[in-house]
Amino acid sequence: MPIHLPRRMKQIRIAQFGLGPIGVETLRLAATKPWAKVVGAIDNNLTITGRDLGELTGIRGLRGCVVQPSLQELLKRVKPHLIFHTAVSKFKTAFVQLEPIARRGISVVSSCEELVFPQLREPLLAHRLDQLCKKNGARIVGTGVNPGFVMDLLPLCLTGVSREVKAVHVQRVVDASTRREPLQRKIGSGLSPGEFRRLLKQGRAGHAGLKESLALVAYGLGWPVKTISESGGAVVADHDIQTKYLRVRKGETCGLHQRAEAKLGKQTVISLVLKMYLDAPDPHDAIQIEGNPPLNLVLPGGVAGDHATVAALVNAAPRLLDALPGLRLPIDLPLPRLA
Amino acid sequence: MPIHLPRRMKQIRIAQFGLGPIGVETLRLAATKPWAKVVGAIDNNLTITGRDLGELTGIRGLRGCVVQPSLQELLKRVKPHLIFHTAVSKFKTAFVQLEPIARRGISVVSSCEELVFPQLREPLLAHRLDQLCKKNGARIVGTGVNPGFVMDLLPLCLTGVSREVKAVHVQRVVDASTRREPLQRKIGSGLSPGEFRRLLKQGRAGHAGLKESLALVAYGLGWPVKTISESGGAVVADHDIQTKYLRVRKGETCGLHQRAEAKLGKQTVISLVLKMYLDAPDPHDAIQIEGNPPLNLVLPGGVAGDHATVAALVNAAPRLLDALPGLRLPIDLPLPRLA
Repeated sequence: MPIHLPRRMKQIRIAQFGLGPIGVETLRLAATKPWAKVVGAIDNNLTITGRDLGELTGIRGLRGCVVQPSLQELLKRVKPHLIFHTAVSKFKTAFVQLEPIARRGISVVSSCEELVFPQLREPLLAHRLDQLCKKNGARIVGTGVNPGFVMDLLPLCLTGVSREVKAVHVQRVVDASTRREPLQRKIGSGLSPGEFRRLLKQGRAGHAGLKESLALVAYGLGWPVKTISESGGAVVADHDIQTKYLRVRKGETCGLHQRAEAKLGKQTVISLVLKMYLDAPDPHDAIQIEGNPPLNLVLPGGVAGDHATVAALVNAAPRLLDALPGLRLPIDLPLPRLA
Repeated sequence: MPIHLPRRMKQIRIAQFGLGPIGVETLRLAATKPWAKVVGAIDNNLTITGRDLGELTGIRGLRGCVVQPSLQELLKRVKPHLIFHTAVSKFKTAFVQLEPIARRGISVVSSCEELVFPQLREPLLAHRLDQLCKKNGARIVGTGVNPGFVMDLLPLCLTGVSREVKAVHVQRVVDASTRREPLQRKIGSGLSPGEFRRLLKQGRAGHAGLKESLALVAYGLGWPVKTISESGGAVVADHDIQTKYLRVRKGETCGLHQRAEAKLGKQTVISLVLKMYLDAPDPHDAIQIEGNPPLNLVLPGGVAGDHATVAALVNAAPRLLDALPGLRLPIDLPLPRLA
């Protein structure tokens, strides 16, 4: 019994903005997809600009393709349909990079954490970018595994079979020992707990996007949440830890715990708890939907951060190009799936 | 920090086609939604036609609203935007009911199991209905909890964070003692195992839609699956069972097991296993994605069938009306979520 529907197979010309570990992996994965043709890359880091993209990524077909210092230089050579943007966490910073891309009518899938719900911190910039996209036929979306999937899209997806939802609780426990070096550093590994708390308060360390995940859940459920509270602190190593990249002594910071929550009236209706530290036991993702029917979901082991983030970016590309122009929320696109 | 996006709140005029237990509950749930205005119902069962819809459903606002025998009679009185269709399992039968609705440009969310992937058994009828929808501005989708969520949409959604997928395995174990009467009968409760096997072979008993779930997963992943094999049989009661609706003696059928699978080459790449019987211990849904990253998801207790099906139908309505006209697959709509 044949399955008759052919899948769309229009080829998408792709370029990369930002060639850190996530950017390089994104490009490598994209290069394996029959619907993708990698045409170039941008990085303003002087140690990367001018280098051979084939050598940097190990993709044979890209030999001779040179990393460009700017969008302008890239566009002199190629015309991508879509750019993977893996450069910054803050939407305000991303905006400056995305604005000229949108003006050219080029679409963007970005790992920028705040872009998962850019209206939260920068409603005016979000509106401006949306207008620019609509005017020039570009689509932009922020996605990833967290924010962008485990703590927002997946719980929302579950509520698709809910008659009524009273509260949404998500807990994600990540064993950071298995993650990439920048992440191991971002969670404060090796710092004194006091120093890390200071950085956390200044917003210079920690996981970005937890509030955005919560805002996306609230918006998706149509809940008129007014304030989101966030708290967090250091997880202190109770033994010496050696990872592939660094060493943490007992008593030093080995990671973080963060919590965002929102109330309606006096009830906590959304809580998102993230624990991300070296050697965390029993890593998992757990979602609890209080309501009718009550729903409990567990992903033992959790969704592996880096592989899954790269996959989320690449898999979003064809669905984004099928959407209407504009600055899109990830829940506006059709169901996530392997592309 | 306010969340600035208002949700669309255009009111949708809704009618019901089919007033069995699922139909009545769908209407009851829809009536609680601020975006829905229930305007009428159709049922061709003579014991229901002509009755007061307010009395049938317990919805006060519907007192004086009479159940109509046909679409034609309904449309003389009201102009619904969308009809919930909960009448039949076979797409061929549903087609005859849906065709005149599509002609009037009215959209449909249906619980018809085969409509979750109508191209599987009736590609020509599916094409015709799609054309009719496009011509008249109607949208039609089939959904529910199974098929429509647990064994197809949810596993596909997980692959949204997959770099690579080698195989998808889903197991659903349902304790049918907690389900509605028609379902307890459909799974063969009280029949002799031989009699039930005969009905199963003739397609007159059993769970509809397992092949459709599989076809939807294969299509969603872009896998060129050519054949789907399905097998199943009776679960025989090992003790006397008394439910709210019926009694099963030891040795009689108390439910079913069904399995659908598909291969690519010699490898089984999708397997869906459903066990649905009275007093089934440890009911749960489990999804395993073999690939990179490997993903395991468990819903202990499982997703409660009837409540969740009704919710899936109602929650799909606003997303369907935002889609382009046509016969839509449930994966074409934006992410499922509470509406």
